[in-house]
Amino acid sequence: MSKKKNFPSSEGVRGFRDLRGSVLSARKQAVQILSDIYEAYGFEALETPVIETAEALGKFLPDVDRPAGGVFGFQDDDERWLALRYDLTAPLARFVAHYDQHLPKPFKRYQTGSVFRNEKPGPGRFREFHQFDADIVGTAAMTADAELCAMLSEGLQALGIKSDEYVININNRKLLTAVFEVAGLSGDDDATFQKRAIAFRAIDKLDRLGEAGVKALLGAGRKDASGDFTEGAGLSDAQTDIILAFTRARGGDNNQTLEACRALLGENETGQTGLVELEKMFEMIDASCSNSQNMVFNPAIVRGLGYYTGPVFEAELTFDVQNEKGKVVQFGSVAGGGRYDDLVARFTGRTVPATGVSIGLDRLLTALENRGALKSEQENLGPVIVTIMDRDRIADYARIAHELRAAGIKTELYLGEAGFKAQMKYADRRHAPIAVIQGSDESAKGEVLLKDLHLGMMMADKAHTHEEWRHNEDVQKLVSQNDIVSAVRAMLERIKNRV
Amino acid sequence: MSKKKNFPSSEGVRGFRDLRGSVLSARKQAVQILSDIYEAYGFEALETPVIETAEALGKFLPDVDRPAGGVFGFQDDDERWLALRYDLTAPLARFVAHYDQHLPKPFKRYQTGSVFRNEKPGPGRFREFHQFDADIVGTAAMTADAELCAMLSEGLQALGIKSDEYVININNRKLLTAVFEVAGLSGDDDATFQKRAIAFRAIDKLDRLGEAGVKALLGAGRKDASGDFTEGAGLSDAQTDIILAFTRARGGDNNQTLEACRALLGENETGQTGLVELEKMFEMIDASCSNSQNMVFNPAIVRGLGYYTGPVFEAELTFDVQNEKGKVVQFGSVAGGGRYDDLVARFTGRTVPATGVSIGLDRLLTALENRGALKSEQENLGPVIVTIMDRDRIADYARIAHELRAAGIKTELYLGEAGFKAQMKYADRRHAPIAVIQGSDESAKGEVLLKDLHLGMMMADKAHTHEEWRHNEDVQKLVSQNDIVSAVRAMLERIKNRV
Repeated sequence: MSKKKNFPSSEGVRGFRDLRGSVLSARKQAVQILSDIYEAYGFEALETPVIETAEALGKFLPDVDRPAGGVFGFQDDDERWLALRYDLTAPLARFVAHYDQHLPKPFKRYQTGSVFRNEKPGPGRFREFHQFDADIVGTAAMTADAELCAMLSEGLQALGIKSDEYVININNRKLLTAVFEVAGLSGDDDATFQKRAIAFRAIDKLDRLGEAGVKALLGAGRKDASGDFTEGAGLSDAQTDIILAFTRARGGDNNQTLEACRALLGENETGQTGLVELEKMFEMIDASCSNSQNMVFNPAIVRGLGYYTGPVFEAELTFDVQNEKGKVVQFGSVAGGGRYDDLVARFTGRTVPATGVSIGLDRLLTALENRGALKSEQENLGPVIVTIMDRDRIADYARIAHELRAAGIKTELYLGEAGFKAQMKYADRRHAPIAVIQGSDESAKGEVLLKDLHLGMMMADKAHTHEEWRHNEDVQKLVSQNDIVSAVRAMLERIKNRV
Repeated sequence: MSKKKNFPSSEGVRGFRDLRGSVLSARKQAVQILSDIYEAYGFEALETPVIETAEALGKFLPDVDRPAGGVFGFQDDDERWLALRYDLTAPLARFVAHYDQHLPKPFKRYQTGSVFRNEKPGPGRFREFHQFDADIVGTAAMTADAELCAMLSEGLQALGIKSDEYVININNRKLLTAVFEVAGLSGDDDATFQKRAIAFRAIDKLDRLGEAGVKALLGAGRKDASGDFTEGAGLSDAQTDIILAFTRARGGDNNQTLEACRALLGENETGQTGLVELEKMFEMIDASCSNSQNMVFNPAIVRGLGYYTGPVFEAELTFDVQNEKGKVVQFGSVAGGGRYDDLVARFTGRTVPATGVSIGLDRLLTALENRGALKSEQENLGPVIVTIMDRDRIADYARIAHELRAAGIKTELYLGEAGFKAQMKYADRRHAPIAVIQGSDESAKGEVLLKDLHLGMMMADKAHTHEEWRHNEDVQKLVSQNDIVSAVRAMLERIKNRV
């Protein structure tokens, strides 16, 4: 009786990805470009651990084996609950609370890395994804918020987003607070708190549902196309009108929007403070951002997170793409942030003013791919391949590879044990631009044959005959072994000009 | 009655670190240098998730809440056990088993990232640390193992380890198998397996315990200085002699060592295979490694991991350092690897030959710090700081910062709200080389004052008087605002030459 052996599954965990090739190299390149810009602005790199205590992250885990609330959690030897970070902001708050006395103020840091969400994965929704954050801690000055927007704008353009393909929407949470105050919704009781929360979520859906949909959600509730009913905030018509008038206050330029908001909120103290903050922010942006016309005061922007206390901002890509249902939509948000003055206070009781911005790198790379701003697999040229014609002379081939590499040419000695045909197939899969070939004939004459695999492939694509291919003298070139470095370099140059 | 609020602790998880400053930038730089070299050899980047299924990692978790066995484990929604990766080799084996048909063969990848060990932390022992791995999957040819050693050697030197400060010790597990066969220890029964395991661990301690200590451990057992007794393998004197003779077989050069081993193992088939493999490896290394004299056939090298099946190698730094007890010792191992032909077979049943090398980046960086090969915090110059003398003219200061940055000069506008003295202190903490100052006088004349903070600090160190410092015209320079870019550039140049 034979027993089938029980092999472990080689399927990874659902919602997680293996990255390689052009996607990974595009991400590495984006990280490098953004790091250079952020460092030029004086931000220093920080790297916090992937694992934090659950209490530091501020999620409260239930008393069961498995943590809930969207984080991956588990217990340490000492029974303490630990969790994988779900963003890079909570760890920063913990870091600042801990090292406060040792940090320059303001403290400006950038950080990039994986964050983890224990949520149901879906198309384009992963449980480990990459963020690129910058934060300024320890100053209440609007110059800080303005700098983040200017830097974000510079970053997007450096990555290949054109100046007319994005806007950075800016709003101030203080204005929303003021609108609620004006609408008589400023109470601290649970019922009013609930109304505000529903109203927040409703405004956030303005893009998707339009004004009629949001009006329904602010009022009695809304039945969607499928017949599902979402309960509304239960506001009066007068209250709804005040809120909608505010979201509608966007004028032809930022000054007009400021004026419109001033007319709506003028008497309210919180509103005045918020408007002065935005004025200062736009003044700084005009002074220091080469693309300041892309910074738009948009009163309809909310940003989901509850912890924002001042300016909020969101970078939106404005070009059209097809969504998963085939409908043409604007690409949408790829980065966002805002001022959060209370996160460090969770640890110390002392308020530390702070503001930050986070780029969703995976989504941004999808956008760049969409714009053709990423190199294709073919354009990322692989290494020159030194083939093995004669296994006894493998040390000679190793010397050739070494010589080319020492001259700064990315070169690989074929390490497998297969025949020539398989080696050429391998070179093809690696997108090798050139194969170096030396049989016994060439060796006897002190020569090597260089094959331009790139041109060969292009000709093959165009359905040239094998004979044409073989005899095209551009495709293969016999050179003296003494000249190999300069000959390979010249051939690579021709290939790069062709790509 | 006042109630003390219960704040969460800002202490991170024990055994984990926050990294910043010169340590982090040294690691980033090392990763960049190694990536460039590995890519020059034709290795492609891969990034696998931090989380894997426990079965894929091959650790078996007990049926309790908390996993044991040195990994951080937890259950997914579907009750499946997950774990954080403890190295980069197990995820590679899972990846290759899964994508086998889609990979070029040989498949050469490098990967860098954090790995996690759920172990008791100690001085210099962390629970999250950084590895830099390269592996070649799908070829049994010794050219692959030779290439890894050559590449490792090139990498160490590129990082600043001098050619006489390291050796790469090479051995072959097949020779150890042969020695056990010759000593009559090749049985498959549990008792013999146990003896071999103890013997392996004993040989691995040769460096630390010397031959007498290892002899005791191979025999009846060993009592250490504290009186603790470690049970031995219980081998006969004849068996012990065979093993020790092998570990002692190292000659004046690799050929002499090969000869000595051949004399000891000559008749044994496994031994012959192993020796031929090493001969091929050294032939390739001689042909392709510019520092081949550092590659040493060392029969005493074992490497801990059980899965090696062929050549094993270990990079050892040979310079002296003080250990935690103040004793002078050689720095020791910073990287290692070897051939493991059975890891992919765990998933598929099919043997896939593979070989790999892993650098312990944290330990290597400690070594580089020891050699003074890392820049100090002071040598890593911070940004030029544009100070705020007059808050009403902050937009002007922002324009100056923007102009310098646009010219490629790392420049930061002071974002805090403190006075001038605090700004200079801030500049000092950021290791800013230059402060840009413009009060109303300078502004009226269209001038700015540049302060060479680096020179100022040096003079302060040498206890010059405040007057001398103030009036030294090298320390501060009044320039026309129109010339600011060239003036800052010239001052930076002088500072860099001084550092």
